[in-house]
Amino acid sequence: MTEFSHINAAGEANMVDVSSKSSNLREARAEVYVLLNSQAIGLIQRGDHHKGDIFGVSRVAGIMAAKRTSDLIPLCHPLMLTKVTVDLELQADQQRVRITSLCKLDGKTGVEMEALTAASVAALTLFDMCKAVDPAMRIDGLRVLEKTGGKSGRWLA
Amino acid sequence: MTEFSHINAAGEANMVDVSSKSSNLREARAEVYVLLNSQAIGLIQRGDHHKGDIFGVSRVAGIMAAKRTSDLIPLCHPLMLTKVTVDLELQADQQRVRITSLCKLDGKTGVEMEALTAASVAALTLFDMCKAVDPAMRIDGLRVLEKTGGKSGRWLA
Amino acid sequence: MTEFSHINAAGEANMVDVSSKSSNLREARAEVYVLLNSQAIGLIQRGDHHKGDIFGVSRVAGIMAAKRTSDLIPLCHPLMLTKVTVDLELQADQQRVRITSLCKLDGKTGVEMEALTAASVAALTLFDMCKAVDPAMRIDGLRVLEKTGGKSGRWLA
Amino acid sequence: MTEFSHINAAGEANMVDVSSKSSNLREARAEVYVLLNSQAIGLIQRGDHHKGDIFGVSRVAGIMAAKRTSDLIPLCHPLMLTKVTVDLELQADQQRVRITSLCKLDGKTGVEMEALTAASVAALTLFDMCKAVDPAMRIDGLRVLEKTGGKSGRWLA
Amino acid sequence: MTEFSHINAAGEANMVDVSSKSSNLREARAEVYVLLNSQAIGLIQRGDHHKGDIFGVSRVAGIMAAKRTSDLIPLCHPLMLTKVTVDLELQADQQRVRITSLCKLDGKTGVEMEALTAASVAALTLFDMCKAVDPAMRIDGLRVLEKTGGKSGRWLA
Amino acid sequence: MTEFSHINAAGEANMVDVSSKSSNLREARAEVYVLLNSQAIGLIQRGDHHKGDIFGVSRVAGIMAAKRTSDLIPLCHPLMLTKVTVDLELQADQQRVRITSLCKLDGKTGVEMEALTAASVAALTLFDMCKAVDPAMRIDGLRVLEKTGGKSGRWLA
Repeated sequence: MTEFSHINAAGEANMVDVSSKSSNLREARAEVYVLLNSQAIGLIQRGDHHKGDIFGVSRVAGIMAAKRTSDLIPLCHPLMLTKVTVDLELQADQQRVRITSLCKLDGKTGVEMEALTAASVAALTLFDMCKAVDPAMRIDGLRVLEKTGGKSGRWLA
Repeated sequence: MTEFSHINAAGEANMVDVSSKSSNLREARAEVYVLLNSQAIGLIQRGDHHKGDIFGVSRVAGIMAAKRTSDLIPLCHPLMLTKVTVDLELQADQQRVRITSLCKLDGKTGVEMEALTAASVAALTLFDMCKAVDPAMRIDGLRVLEKTGGKSGRWLA
Repeated sequence: MTEFSHINAAGEANMVDVSSKSSNLREARAEVYVLLNSQAIGLIQRGDHHKGDIFGVSRVAGIMAAKRTSDLIPLCHPLMLTKVTVDLELQADQQRVRITSLCKLDGKTGVEMEALTAASVAALTLFDMCKAVDPAMRIDGLRVLEKTGGKSGRWLA
Repeated sequence: MTEFSHINAAGEANMVDVSSKSSNLREARAEVYVLLNSQAIGLIQRGDHHKGDIFGVSRVAGIMAAKRTSDLIPLCHPLMLTKVTVDLELQADQQRVRITSLCKLDGKTGVEMEALTAASVAALTLFDMCKAVDPAMRIDGLRVLEKTGGKSGRWLA
Repeated sequence: MTEFSHINAAGEANMVDVSSKSSNLREARAEVYVLLNSQAIGLIQRGDHHKGDIFGVSRVAGIMAAKRTSDLIPLCHPLMLTKVTVDLELQADQQRVRITSLCKLDGKTGVEMEALTAASVAALTLFDMCKAVDPAMRIDGLRVLEKTGGKSGRWLA
Repeated sequence: MTEFSHINAAGEANMVDVSSKSSNLREARAEVYVLLNSQAIGLIQRGDHHKGDIFGVSRVAGIMAAKRTSDLIPLCHPLMLTKVTVDLELQADQQRVRITSLCKLDGKTGVEMEALTAASVAALTLFDMCKAVDPAMRIDGLRVLEKTGGKSGRWLA
């Protein structure tokens, strides 16, 4: 591919035409990291062993955001996601939280933007809840891990 | 601060009460990087010199997303932003695009989540438009650069 | 069924995976009651005989809300509803308004949450319009009346 | 008051004009009950003692819905809520969950519709998560408990 | 004024900075016409004398759309409208419906875009409801009629 | 057709039931004009030859609005658009901008409301960006140009 599919010959924004593509099962997985200071890590650890909502709220926000992807990203098609998963794992040794997401669809186009949006908004929500303790957090390494279904088959990072 | 402001004593999600805070001018700036391969960098460069909408579409998506922050992040307050700026700069030598955002408010609470959301969604939109050429892009280094206004004064990364 | 389908083994929020379910015709009906004082009942009665918008506005709000169910209820799937009906009936003798809703879908999952959301928001809208006259209203008896289609066949309250 | 404020003399939908009302602190509290069968009650109890997200997800959904009230209820004014709280309490003896909500605003109009919407959507979300175990649940007794601020002062149910 | 306020020196989209503008009462009125064939006019007339919801549904859609203007128009500021009115008048002799809208705000920027959006969406809704009878309708003459408040004072079309 | 499909026998708002309609390829095209004064025309012309975002921002706003049609127009069905195009052409001689839109769907109902909404919001966005230079603009001639697919075949204005 030597051109951007989302920009036409005149250099204008272009939504790809998927009218004639066939519907089939598609999946995408994404990941992102939130880097926190040790005080924030400590508070999350404490919550984990009790009943803190920190991870729960981030998970819900990520799932809801996946469903709103086409409302946020101008050239994304509206899709009827059949499954969204968001997982958060505290990696205390590396002073970070790893967030992974999975989106599934029985439809005409890939769902990697949905998986990336879910991971992004879960990370932003975690940031929001921890920012009073660590305003210098960083969100890093957002990328697609795997993509299956569709004409191009499986893509693995 | 030794506790998360967004989690109450029972470990439950908690929207901070800003009812009695005074309204004043607040600003926040954020940044994020999108790392692309050389083919994508080349296509963006070409667009820059012509009239490609790549940066324009990302900018609009970022500005619109800032206005929807409280709709995406569960514990964010609804705010009447008075100004949103999103800038994209191609740093071809480092094979990346730098995105910076600025949000302003005359209100009761800080706007760093709005600035982060604007930068995030601008980056996701850039990703969407370039993914056919480079599916292995990475979005990195999302963080707050500066925050002014409010009781705590100026905070600089 | 001995477990919640929407909570996984780790106790986390879980969107049910409907990727492999077949698409077929599904319907759900719900009802709810709004209990009002005699002054509000009288004003609605008068409007009925003239051209009051009280019931009309509630109906429109309920129909629009049905379409936004997956945006409000975190683990609901986005669906392409093919029909939404909201009906309001003044039952003056019982000093109440009965609201019923019907949702239809040709799709992969049931639509009872859509029917409940339509009835709920229609009731809230009626409440909003009558609250200056009767601030002590109560919304009661929201439930699913019937559900058809899908693997489990017909369910009747 | 002998007329509906939300319907004009011609019987048409009417958004109350609050342009000239002064801004002051306002609060409203609402409650609602979800009635469940003993199997659902048992599963929630078990989750409570572990780390089930059932109440957490409902709380987040209720908080987010409060912020979208003016988007759902046609004649509600857009408001900048300064605080939203949603609480869920299992009342196992009565086979029900009690949900209470609190909304606060420094603004020109009351927030009882916001409190009612928060409680409603939290109840609908609880329903969604429990419906596989108990499809015959009922949502009952949605009402305003208390309202303070504004010209009319304190109102108590 | 010799430049567009919404485009900066580099030709990029620019949200006007209203941070330092003072808050005051502002109003805007807009109008639009929907031109219909005689069959559609006849059906609306019949409804008018009975209890047709044609105008009622359009009015509600227009009011709700006004509240979502900043979500639709990229460079509009989020605003807390204090009043929205939408009126529809059948002008059977000219085979058209005239729609007028009024928006009010106690805030930092004008509300003509909100008035135009209200009128627009009311007209689109009328079109939707009449299109089976007259697919060749035309929506004409959308413009601002009057604008008051703010530094520039009163503007009259 | 001698009745409005969107109003039932009782004169109430009625969403057409498309449950049993078959899915097939459908398209609709719409157009609208924005009439501007010569100063605004001049500034747009200048931008065209440089890199002004005026048309780009309007195009993005129109595309995004098409995807939100069922959220704005009460009786429209939610649809999964497979393609949206918005084009803007400066017709300097006639002192106007012509906006055309195209929507495509593989689904159960026509997409003319989506095409009209895209054109409308693109026009409103253009208005917003030019209003400081020409507050007396007019948006004219919004109509469907062509509609294909579905039982009724091709319709041409």
